[in-house]
Amino acid sequence: MTRLFNDPAAFADEALAGFVAAHRRWVRPVTGGVVRAGGTPAGQVAVVIGGGSGHYPAFSGLVGAGLAHGAAVGNVFASPSAQQIRTVAKAADGGAGVLLMFGNYAGDVLHFGQAADRLTAEGVRAETFAVTDDISSAPAAEHTKRRGIAGDLPVFKAASAAAEAGLPLDEVIAVAAHANARTRSFGIAFSGCTLPGAGQPLFTVPEGRMAVGLGIHGEPGIGEEALPSADRAAELLVASLLNELPDGVDAPRGRRAAVILNGLGSVKYEELFVVYHRVAQLLEEAGVTAVEPEVGELVTSFDMAGVSLTLTWLDERLETLWTAPADTPAYRKGAVAAPTEPAAAAEPAEGAETEDVIPDATPASRQAAETAAAALRVIAATVEEHADALGRIDAVAGDGDHGIGMLRGATAADTAARTAHERGAGAGTVLHRAADAWADRAGGTSGALWGTILHAVGDALGDTERPTAATVSAGVTRACDEVRRIGGAQVGDKTMVDVLVPFADTLAVETAAGARTAAAWDRAATAATTAAAATADLLPQMGRARPHAEKSLGTPDAGAHSLALIVRAVHGVLTDTTGEN
Amino acid sequence: MTRLFNDPAAFADEALAGFVAAHRRWVRPVTGGVVRAGGTPAGQVAVVIGGGSGHYPAFSGLVGAGLAHGAAVGNVFASPSAQQIRTVAKAADGGAGVLLMFGNYAGDVLHFGQAADRLTAEGVRAETFAVTDDISSAPAAEHTKRRGIAGDLPVFKAASAAAEAGLPLDEVIAVAAHANARTRSFGIAFSGCTLPGAGQPLFTVPEGRMAVGLGIHGEPGIGEEALPSADRAAELLVASLLNELPDGVDAPRGRRAAVILNGLGSVKYEELFVVYHRVAQLLEEAGVTAVEPEVGELVTSFDMAGVSLTLTWLDERLETLWTAPADTPAYRKGAVAAPTEPAAAAEPAEGAETEDVIPDATPASRQAAETAAAALRVIAATVEEHADALGRIDAVAGDGDHGIGMLRGATAADTAARTAHERGAGAGTVLHRAADAWADRAGGTSGALWGTILHAVGDALGDTERPTAATVSAGVTRACDEVRRIGGAQVGDKTMVDVLVPFADTLAVETAAGARTAAAWDRAATAATTAAAATADLLPQMGRARPHAEKSLGTPDAGAHSLALIVRAVHGVLTDTTGEN
Repeated sequence: MTRLFNDPAAFADEALAGFVAAHRRWVRPVTGGVVRAGGTPAGQVAVVIGGGSGHYPAFSGLVGAGLAHGAAVGNVFASPSAQQIRTVAKAADGGAGVLLMFGNYAGDVLHFGQAADRLTAEGVRAETFAVTDDISSAPAAEHTKRRGIAGDLPVFKAASAAAEAGLPLDEVIAVAAHANARTRSFGIAFSGCTLPGAGQPLFTVPEGRMAVGLGIHGEPGIGEEALPSADRAAELLVASLLNELPDGVDAPRGRRAAVILNGLGSVKYEELFVVYHRVAQLLEEAGVTAVEPEVGELVTSFDMAGVSLTLTWLDERLETLWTAPADTPAYRKGAVAAPTEPAAAAEPAEGAETEDVIPDATPASRQAAETAAAALRVIAATVEEHADALGRIDAVAGDGDHGIGMLRGATAADTAARTAHERGAGAGTVLHRAADAWADRAGGTSGALWGTILHAVGDALGDTERPTAATVSAGVTRACDEVRRIGGAQVGDKTMVDVLVPFADTLAVETAAGARTAAAWDRAATAATTAAAATADLLPQMGRARPHAEKSLGTPDAGAHSLALIVRAVHGVLTDTTGEN
Repeated sequence: MTRLFNDPAAFADEALAGFVAAHRRWVRPVTGGVVRAGGTPAGQVAVVIGGGSGHYPAFSGLVGAGLAHGAAVGNVFASPSAQQIRTVAKAADGGAGVLLMFGNYAGDVLHFGQAADRLTAEGVRAETFAVTDDISSAPAAEHTKRRGIAGDLPVFKAASAAAEAGLPLDEVIAVAAHANARTRSFGIAFSGCTLPGAGQPLFTVPEGRMAVGLGIHGEPGIGEEALPSADRAAELLVASLLNELPDGVDAPRGRRAAVILNGLGSVKYEELFVVYHRVAQLLEEAGVTAVEPEVGELVTSFDMAGVSLTLTWLDERLETLWTAPADTPAYRKGAVAAPTEPAAAAEPAEGAETEDVIPDATPASRQAAETAAAALRVIAATVEEHADALGRIDAVAGDGDHGIGMLRGATAADTAARTAHERGAGAGTVLHRAADAWADRAGGTSGALWGTILHAVGDALGDTERPTAATVSAGVTRACDEVRRIGGAQVGDKTMVDVLVPFADTLAVETAAGARTAAAWDRAATAATTAAAATADLLPQMGRARPHAEKSLGTPDAGAHSLALIVRAVHGVLTDTTGEN
């Protein structure tokens, strides 16, 4: 929802004023909107775009060299008035006439039309052009009734680039018509936006559903379906557009197209990229070359959750116009400067390292590797069982991703350990492979520390000897030292160190007293559980990602807690495979 | 929330692949991330940035000329592994060493540090630098423990521009340290983000509240306050940063600063501009010159609702680095080409029109103007009373803004009418002023049509004669003709025309039969109410903003309904002022 406003009635005016304050290099304010800061070159047709507020970067963000000469900016989701449009157009006029461009909505058609009439009456040649790219808003037979959505951008750009190239008004209009005839969009939405000061969203989509054929003013879709995967969404978007090719495009194969995957507001960049990943595959499979694709927010609807795909089927002329440089507040195209001679092509030779040789191992160590792999299996299962709870605990003082990170790491480690074991690795190599996989996949602090722990234990076990209680204990002690060194935490800082130290110490004491591996581990695991519970009474280490000390009193540390759970679970494996109690 | 994904575990990899597919002009993929498509110029220090996924355009979107040479991209909100960082760094290395830059989070510090160790061991000179701009994450005395948030950008950019200028690694590090020491950020948040596949947001903020001192990984803030106005939010952000000036900046006045107002995801552009409007005022009042400010999404956290302000206090050298050109997928700076000679400065002379002369009027028409102004008063009150309901009706088939638009228009018309009346205007002028104000402020289709209606009635009434039932009826008939001509709708299209035509016709018939104004109006209003109700049974006119024909069966048209409400309410004024029944 829209939360930051003062008087809702002043929202659009204040937004425009703030936009101008931030972009004086590109635009200057005039009554009713903005024009290019440097004005329209004399003798150049001026393209004046416009529509309601709430669609940024449409429309004011698209004013500048290579794109529009001015933008008339209405109230939230409302057309600018004819008077506003007229003022902006007169300020933008370079003496060669004005083309007024907008999306095909009744209010815009009325007001821009009235403005053109008044301008003409005043001796300024003015024509209008309405973009009609949204194929969901009317059938193909009635395409002139369709709405304009993200296809506004390529049509505006084609006309503007034609004007920039010095074409007269009639030819600029012909370019706009040609670009519009070759531009199609289709969209889906997951939630509506809430206007400034409004108590409710303009429309809602039930959780887990999507509206098909969205509008950019919160108009509900023409149908509703279950929320798809990103791939399925990409398939729907691409198929819908390939299903209605414009005149002059017989088949997709061999064609080139400008591609815009547009986010409506709160579908974010990474999601758009995941969808685009599949869009790019599908277009390639269809034989379509994507030319300078745009993936981002170009015509929005506040924080509406939705996405649309636009294709402009290019010919040589339209491609020149699409790829022409532009420099506006929100849309910039054209390289600053080509980089100078690059260093010799630089992908590092990874061959020596990725060549996957399993070091030789003794039968004794291979047998121990079975236990090690089983332990990794149990660790992964334990983490999976507790992942949600670990995330919730972590969210109290940290960023809440401990469960997710541990699950990624433990799962990868399990797979790596099993693979290495099946290929005949010894216990040390199995643990090293698991360590690398964990650190590589988990990320985060816990990923690095668990990689360190498994690596240290692997070092102690090696690929030759049958592990004893002493070697296991030595490995854990070494792991404990390494974690303290790397992480910089001490006992009492409310981290996994609070558990690792008593666990390692108890294991060492019991082992020195002659206990066998599983028995010593059992007592050490009990000490770990006690220590993990005690972290609830501690304030966390200050700084970095955990500044919320006071909130976490009464909640154990997530890393300490997961360590205790894991060492307890691993005990089951040691018992099973050694026969000890 | 994050809705578009396939396997959540594959999200970050698929997002990176889609990002690369869309941006081949700038980047090429390597194991663990991306490097510049053209490579690092030989002999240039390579700046390799990185961190978790979920912060786009940080980090991959900032790779390109003038900014980073490579980005290591981790899983969602997780540091890339040391191995990933090492691979990217080796691919980016131009033979002059690598500076690894990241925000100061424990996981990143660990992994980038390990990567630097390994690179050094392999003969690639590598150093690390952690950005620490977030003043809410640790006190000033412990500033080295602070997190990096949107201040990443100016610090990365300063170091990268220094590298681009050919400085050796030690000096690039010194530039990074200087830029970081002069960069401060502070943020607020209104809602947490939901990770791909997660069932719940990482944190929540109660409705109507805000968290102060946000993190970019969903870490909760350090305090909580009532949701402020946009101006108050701006004041909090600016005051917090002016309260902690860096060494070397004794006072704000006379200083120049790079300014970044960063949206975290679903605080959208118009909101950011409303906030920036006040930020710019406050900085100016404090004597600070904002240099090339950035208002937009630069370091995000999926769809988290929040905003942060960053200031980098510039000296001559930092300003040169901040304003240096850059060309990356998400950050481009540097003009394409200056526009050629602009047309003569073009703000139109509005003086002749805005000089506000009230035309002369007879006492009879002035008296009628009192009725006209009272009618506008009643219209505004009626619209206000029904605005929410009109919005809900309109939302069924349209964009739901009918109530808001009507309220803006009617309120402006009321004010304009009262002002004109107080200044001695006749009935015609009062209605003309009201008409212009309505059309100008309401926007939308209804704004244009109501402007037309009031204008037509004003034409009929004029400023001379005492209005009769016949002149009122003639005005309404003329209004009806104009609305049909401009809007293109006919009876049966489910628009206000369905009501306006029987209203005008009934008024004409009753007037011709000798009824006085109020009596004729009463019967016409009844016909209007009946006709408005009947629109519930109709399918709406196809096309434009109302493609949802089937949904609106059973609901009247909002424009028809509001017209019927208004003519009924106006009858009360006519009765009161004429004494008719």
